[in-house]
Amino acid sequence: MTPIKVGLLGLGTVGAGTFNVLRRNQEEIMRRAGRAIEITMIAVRNVERARALVGDACEVVGDPALVVNNPNIDIVVELIGGVDLTKALVLTAIANGKHVVTANKALVAIHGNEIFKAAQDKGVMVAFEAAVAGGIPIIKSLREGLSANRIEWIAGIINGTTNFILTEMRDKGLDFATVLKQAQELGYAESDPTFDIEGVDAAHKATIMAAIAFGIPMQFDKAHIEGISQLQAIDIAYAEQLGYRIKLLGITKRTAKGIELRVHPTLIPGTRLIANVEGAMNAVLVQGDAVGASMYYGKGAGAEPTASSVIADLVDVTRLATADPEHRVPYLAFQPNAINQEVILPMSEITTSYYLRIRVADQAGVLADVTRIMADLSISIDAMLQKEPAEGEVQTDIIMLTHQTQEKNVLEAIRNIEQLSSVFGPVVKIRLEQLS
Amino acid sequence: MTPIKVGLLGLGTVGAGTFNVLRRNQEEIMRRAGRAIEITMIAVRNVERARALVGDACEVVGDPALVVNNPNIDIVVELIGGVDLTKALVLTAIANGKHVVTANKALVAIHGNEIFKAAQDKGVMVAFEAAVAGGIPIIKSLREGLSANRIEWIAGIINGTTNFILTEMRDKGLDFATVLKQAQELGYAESDPTFDIEGVDAAHKATIMAAIAFGIPMQFDKAHIEGISQLQAIDIAYAEQLGYRIKLLGITKRTAKGIELRVHPTLIPGTRLIANVEGAMNAVLVQGDAVGASMYYGKGAGAEPTASSVIADLVDVTRLATADPEHRVPYLAFQPNAINQEVILPMSEITTSYYLRIRVADQAGVLADVTRIMADLSISIDAMLQKEPAEGEVQTDIIMLTHQTQEKNVLEAIRNIEQLSSVFGPVVKIRLEQLS
Repeated sequence: MTPIKVGLLGLGTVGAGTFNVLRRNQEEIMRRAGRAIEITMIAVRNVERARALVGDACEVVGDPALVVNNPNIDIVVELIGGVDLTKALVLTAIANGKHVVTANKALVAIHGNEIFKAAQDKGVMVAFEAAVAGGIPIIKSLREGLSANRIEWIAGIINGTTNFILTEMRDKGLDFATVLKQAQELGYAESDPTFDIEGVDAAHKATIMAAIAFGIPMQFDKAHIEGISQLQAIDIAYAEQLGYRIKLLGITKRTAKGIELRVHPTLIPGTRLIANVEGAMNAVLVQGDAVGASMYYGKGAGAEPTASSVIADLVDVTRLATADPEHRVPYLAFQPNAINQEVILPMSEITTSYYLRIRVADQAGVLADVTRIMADLSISIDAMLQKEPAEGEVQTDIIMLTHQTQEKNVLEAIRNIEQLSSVFGPVVKIRLEQLS
Repeated sequence: MTPIKVGLLGLGTVGAGTFNVLRRNQEEIMRRAGRAIEITMIAVRNVERARALVGDACEVVGDPALVVNNPNIDIVVELIGGVDLTKALVLTAIANGKHVVTANKALVAIHGNEIFKAAQDKGVMVAFEAAVAGGIPIIKSLREGLSANRIEWIAGIINGTTNFILTEMRDKGLDFATVLKQAQELGYAESDPTFDIEGVDAAHKATIMAAIAFGIPMQFDKAHIEGISQLQAIDIAYAEQLGYRIKLLGITKRTAKGIELRVHPTLIPGTRLIANVEGAMNAVLVQGDAVGASMYYGKGAGAEPTASSVIADLVDVTRLATADPEHRVPYLAFQPNAINQEVILPMSEITTSYYLRIRVADQAGVLADVTRIMADLSISIDAMLQKEPAEGEVQTDIIMLTHQTQEKNVLEAIRNIEQLSSVFGPVVKIRLEQLS
């Protein structure tokens, strides 16, 4: 069988990783795929630099249009990043009857519906394993491995930068800004870290997982997104005292009222396996009605882990390139005509537990006032921690863990608590999930 | 499209689970598969009991030959267990052009080569996700999700019974026999627990993983198998003091000299995520050259977790039932003509680290004698623990952790140590893996 011909868009970290792994493991991959996979053309901004890297192995061009319009290319691998140029390139590749593999989570989360529709009309595949959790085969596990299940919820540590920062903050008791700076120096955080630390990257990935878990369209614009930049070291320490760790989780959950889709710092019990996922590692916990809890752990970023997923997609696409569409796994795990228009719940309607930290005057009656407000809103308190004020201080912290309740109830409670004259400053609220 | 017709052999725990999940999640599975999956015939020993369970949903017969020879059945699901009858039934099903799904690890590990050859000749699929680690999609992850990688090693907690027993022994400081009895009462161990506690079940699974990770034939007869029945509570306690936990691991590793394939109790660092996999849960840690370490965690047994994998296979087989064989994933992950005849190393040739417990007289010179023997065989000692003898005792334990060395060296060291007049009883040897 003739080799399948691949055109690569971009030769950055992941592009170079893909090129290198494909070359290094050529023989092993061929033993699996039964057909050689050849990168025949690469489009990059810096052609000279790329030529130095890849040698004469393939053609290097500056214009990506030359790749997506090249009639000799079967599969286009998009590793440029960004959503505008890449959307146009991917749609052109599809229009030209090429299969597409991409690691671009933003592209899939924001323009996936349009891209999959075009691909379906044209009868080509679009694969995106590398878009979520790097080297972990979580898309395949959700789409195929757990296809017997009604998925109930997914909770994932799906951003390595923030998990690295949170691990360091906890281990060393440092504050966010200090650790972010270190992370940037170590290369764990980008010079503009906004997408990572504000939860946008995790929200792209959670959006994709929600779609394939529940058979709904991509709805990134409905995701609730909250990052870790406001997180204080003191709350990590209090959480620890109560037996919890704080992780930035991407959560999506099926409820009777609709789908929850949210990214935020979350207290989880320290005894859970996922609570012990440290540093830049990723892990996704999936609850299915038949399988129960299962977890998928590995490197969520980096040249070769991401290349591992890109190439796994290439092998899959190679295998099914000439198959009829019905032999292929549907883009979003569910058949295109079976996608549900289920509602993504607004944040006020979600149900979870809460960690609240309230700065109060150290005087009689405060606790009674606070707990009365909670009781009036039918919010049960599961645990409480009240510290003696430090030497010479007249203020102290009350920490409460609530039972499950609706977000809007907690917001109302906080508004009422903040109006008490014995309460100082804003109440700190961090959501809490038992993950059981 | 007409429903695909499934014949079920066996309606025990997993069979009933498969029937129930397929019925309960019918609609969701259909949304994914695009085609209904219908169990139309079930063969069981106790026909009356089965009829009571399944009602009029499908035909129930006593003779499994009626299923495998039924021209209206597309896929045979073998959930009887055992290897003799099932081998004959599976080969007949294949000869009749039916696809096969099985959860039978012994069958695949022992007769897989013959079965896959027959299936290949006939152009049918044989799927066995449920044979390893229950509900965890580890076969799919290895065969497809990690297809870019040269797999370096796999280490798995792949027997829930033994992991439950080890967890209880450690948590409660109890001995093996006591915990086994409790496990039997709780239903975590069978009345004849031999296959589980002696490592045979784990060896079946490790054999299967070795084959699909390295592209070698099934070679169960070459696996080294050692269970946990000889494990003493004291060694679990000493390991803990040294920062390690003892788990029964199924290990397979690619080395320059050949493949290691072994099941035995193993010390692993307590800080590793897999060391914290407790109770009856399973987890498989995979090291690939591109992806690095990745781990897959979930329930390794039970009706519905196993059914989850059986049905995932059914969905895959349904999707590819009418596809050409080259569109399907090869049985053993590698193309049949690319299977290597790599050697499985005899145990004496494997390389690992060791925990040794030596019962010695509490007198001068013993430690010098022991360490001299180790030095003469070039075995480095990484850590040591010597306890003061208990009040009124004249014997004590020396515990040593060695650096990596060949098994045959350690065996010789132990023979020499046991000949020392100041050493009492046999030396306890437990292998140790850093898993890094």
